[in-house]
Amino acid sequence: MSELIRRLRDGLPEDAVLTDPDVTGSYSRDMADFCDAGTPAAVVLPRTVDEVQHVMRTATALRVPVVPQGARTGLSGAANASDGCIVLSLLRMDRILEISPADRIAVVEPGVVNAALSRAVEEHGLHYPPDPSSWEQCTIGGNIGTAAGGLCCVKYGVTAEYVLGLDVVLADGRLMSTGRRTAKGVAGYDMTRLFTGSEGTLGIVVRAVLALKPKPPQQLALAAEFPSAAAAGDAVSRIMESGHVPSLMELMDRTTLRAVNALNDMGLPESTEALLLTAFDTDDPGADLAAVGALCEEAGASHVVPAETRAESELLLQARRSVHWALEALPGTTMIDDVCVPRTRLAEMLEGTAAVSEKYGLTIGVCAHAGDGNTHPTVCFDPHDEDETRRAHQAFDAIMALGLELGGTITGEHGVGVLKREWLARELGPVGLEMQRGIKQLLDPLGLLNPGKVF
Amino acid sequence: MSELIRRLRDGLPEDAVLTDPDVTGSYSRDMADFCDAGTPAAVVLPRTVDEVQHVMRTATALRVPVVPQGARTGLSGAANASDGCIVLSLLRMDRILEISPADRIAVVEPGVVNAALSRAVEEHGLHYPPDPSSWEQCTIGGNIGTAAGGLCCVKYGVTAEYVLGLDVVLADGRLMSTGRRTAKGVAGYDMTRLFTGSEGTLGIVVRAVLALKPKPPQQLALAAEFPSAAAAGDAVSRIMESGHVPSLMELMDRTTLRAVNALNDMGLPESTEALLLTAFDTDDPGADLAAVGALCEEAGASHVVPAETRAESELLLQARRSVHWALEALPGTTMIDDVCVPRTRLAEMLEGTAAVSEKYGLTIGVCAHAGDGNTHPTVCFDPHDEDETRRAHQAFDAIMALGLELGGTITGEHGVGVLKREWLARELGPVGLEMQRGIKQLLDPLGLLNPGKVF
Repeated sequence: MSELIRRLRDGLPEDAVLTDPDVTGSYSRDMADFCDAGTPAAVVLPRTVDEVQHVMRTATALRVPVVPQGARTGLSGAANASDGCIVLSLLRMDRILEISPADRIAVVEPGVVNAALSRAVEEHGLHYPPDPSSWEQCTIGGNIGTAAGGLCCVKYGVTAEYVLGLDVVLADGRLMSTGRRTAKGVAGYDMTRLFTGSEGTLGIVVRAVLALKPKPPQQLALAAEFPSAAAAGDAVSRIMESGHVPSLMELMDRTTLRAVNALNDMGLPESTEALLLTAFDTDDPGADLAAVGALCEEAGASHVVPAETRAESELLLQARRSVHWALEALPGTTMIDDVCVPRTRLAEMLEGTAAVSEKYGLTIGVCAHAGDGNTHPTVCFDPHDEDETRRAHQAFDAIMALGLELGGTITGEHGVGVLKREWLARELGPVGLEMQRGIKQLLDPLGLLNPGKVF
Repeated sequence: MSELIRRLRDGLPEDAVLTDPDVTGSYSRDMADFCDAGTPAAVVLPRTVDEVQHVMRTATALRVPVVPQGARTGLSGAANASDGCIVLSLLRMDRILEISPADRIAVVEPGVVNAALSRAVEEHGLHYPPDPSSWEQCTIGGNIGTAAGGLCCVKYGVTAEYVLGLDVVLADGRLMSTGRRTAKGVAGYDMTRLFTGSEGTLGIVVRAVLALKPKPPQQLALAAEFPSAAAAGDAVSRIMESGHVPSLMELMDRTTLRAVNALNDMGLPESTEALLLTAFDTDDPGADLAAVGALCEEAGASHVVPAETRAESELLLQARRSVHWALEALPGTTMIDDVCVPRTRLAEMLEGTAAVSEKYGLTIGVCAHAGDGNTHPTVCFDPHDEDETRRAHQAFDAIMALGLELGGTITGEHGVGVLKREWLARELGPVGLEMQRGIKQLLDPLGLLNPGKVF
C-alpha cells in the first residue's frame, strides 16, 4: 500500500477510500466528454468535516493534488481527475441540516442533490430557485463550485445570489467560515462570493447557508414560433424593454427542436426557425402572457400558442430540459458552448452562430436562456474524423470570439474548467489575470487544489 | 510647494488639487462624529480615469496614503482622513454614462448621487432599488464602497446585488476591469464582489455597471403599534413565515418616535413601545396589508392603521427616513450601531438592547430594518461627560457582543471603518482574518489605500 493510501486510511473509515481502478475510473470525469482526464490514485468519500480536513492535511503533507467532485454533471471538465490525484467526492455529505421558514434559509452539506433540497423546502412553503437542467442529479456543492445557473435565472438569478455563508476547508486542512446567516452583512471582504464559482481551486466547501424565497405560484408558459432567430431575439428585447418580469424565457432553434422530437416525440414545430418559450409565475399569468404574445407578434412571430393549463406548460419545460440529452443522442459527439451576451445583442449572437455553422460546415444546435442572453450553441461532430474535429474546435472558438466581440463573456454558467482556460486570459486581460492568480496563490500556495483548472 | 503637491499638479488641472487647510479641513471626516480624523496634505478632485491613475501613481511613487471619498455620509469613519494623506474625492466624476432599458443596466461614474440615478432611470420606467437613508446625498461610489443597504433591502437586497462590473484603479495606478455587463457570467473569480464593500482599502472604483429592475407600483404602507418591542419582533417572524414579500418593514421604538415628533411634529404615537411599518408594492397591496394587519393583531398589536392613500404612506416613510436626524437633534451626541441578527432573533435583540440601556443608564433609541433583522440602536450621551462617554462605548460594545451571540454580524450595512476594527477579528476568527489580510496585502502591498480602516 502506498504511503498516500496508508495515511488517508489513518483518518477515514474503511469504505471511504477507494483504490480499485475499475471503481475509481468511474470518478475520472464530468460530462464534458471531449476534455482530457487522468487516472486518480484514490477516490475518497468523507462523511464529516473532520474527514475532509484529514484528506487536505494528508494531501498537503504529501504534496498530492486534490480534485473535488459533486455529481460530475459539469460541462467544462472542472471535475476531471488528473493523474495521481486524490478525487475528493462530497456525495456522502448529503444532509440538509436546517430549514428555517421565518429566516428563509437552509443550511446544507455540499452533497445534497439540488432537487432534494428544492423538494424539502417546498414542504415548508419555500422555494430554492437555482435549477440547472441537471437538477435531479447535480449537488449544491457542485452548484456553488460553478455558481450554476438554470432556467429560473431571468427572474431569480444564479446560485451565487443564494449563498449567504460557507464553511470551507482550506488547502492546508484548516477550517474557515465566511459570510453569515443573516439577511444582510458587510463585515470585511466578501469571501463567500470569492469561493462561489471558484471551481474547486480555492477550498473545499463543506457547509453552506442558502437563502430561500417564498414558493411562487406555478408558472404558465407561452410558445411563440419565429421565422428567424433574429426575430426571436428582437422579441426578447421588446419584452424586457416593456418591463415584464418572466420567470423563464428560453429559445430553441430548428436543429434543437428536431433533436428533441427525435428523442421524445414531443410534437414541437419543426418548420419554424426558432421557438421562444416565455413563462410567468405571477398571480395573473394569463394577462402577462397575452401582453407578451402581442409583443411576439409585433416582432414577427408566425404562431403564438399560450399553454391552456399548467400541465401543458410543464410539458413545454420538459422539452426544454431534455435538450442536452437530445443533442447528445445525435450521431457523433457534441461540444456545448456557454456564451452570454447583453440581451440586446442576442439576435446578433444567433445570426453570427449560424454564420459560424455555415463557415465550418458543421451542425450547431442552439438553445438559449434567451432572457439572460445566455446561449448554448452545441457543435456536433464526428470525433473519429480528424478534419471535422479540427473544424469543430475552430467553430467552438469562433463562437467565444463572437461573444466577446458583442460585449459578452465566454461562460455564462458552465465555468472555465479545462475547456476554456486559454480563453479566460482574453476575457480578463493581463491585470485581471494577474490578480486572480494572486488570489489562487494566497489560498492554495502549493497549487494542490484542482490544478490545471480555470488558469 | 511640497514634492507631493508639485507632482499631483503635474497631471491634474489647477482646480483639482486643494491645499488650503480651511478648505481641506471640510473633507476630513464622514458622519461618524465620534471617530478620530486626521489632517490631509491635499484633497484631489479628479474628473477622469486618467487623473485618478495619476493620483495613485504619484501616491505609490511617494508612498503617501490615499483616502477615497464620496459624499462623506458614512457612519463608521471609513472616509476619515489620516494625517498627511491625499483625500481622493470622486464627487466630480458624476456622469451617468448609459442607461439601457432592454439590458436593464446603467453605467455610471462613482460620484453620481444615488437619488440622481434613481430619478434618471425612473424616466425609462426602471428602478434602482438601493436606498440608504442618505440617498439624496450619498454617491454610488460610496454605496459600492460600503455595499450600502437601505429601506428596500427586505425585498430588493443591498447595493452588492446590483453591481455587475467595475473599473478599478489599483494602488499602483493600473486599471483593472471586473465582471460584466451581461445578466450572467462566471469567468474566473468574482472580483466585483471582492471590491464591493471593501471600504476603499483595495482599489478606487472609477466606473460601475449596475443592474436595474422594472419600476414597481408605488408602495402602500401599514402602521402597527405594539405594547412591547418583543411583540413587534414576533409579528415580523409571523409575517415572513407566512410567505409575504413586503417592500419595506421598519421598526421604531418609543424613544425614536418621540425624537421624530420633536423634530418634525409628524404625529406619530408616543405612548406605544414599538411601531412597525410594513409596505407592499404589489398589484394589490390592500390585500397584502389586510393579511399582515391580522398577523400583527395576532402578535399583540394594539392598533393597526393602514394608510388610505399613497401620500399617507409616503409621510410614514418620511418619518422613518428622518430618524437619523431626529436622534442627532437630541441633546448631546449619538453613536449609531448597526447589528444584524437572523430575523427570528430580532425580539431577543430588542429586549437585550433595552437591558443594555438600563444597565449603563443611557438612552438608546432603536430603529430597525426589521424585515432584515438589522437594528440601529443609537446610544445618546454627553461627550463632555467622561463617565457617560465611557459608558456609551461600553453600551455600544455590549450591543455588538449581543448581536454575535444571537448569530448575527457586527455590521449589517454601515461597514467596519475605524469604528469596529477591533470587533472584526471577533466576527471573522483568526483564519478568516488572516485570509482577508492576505487579500489586502495582494491588492495593496504598500498599504497605501485607506490605511487604518477595516483591519
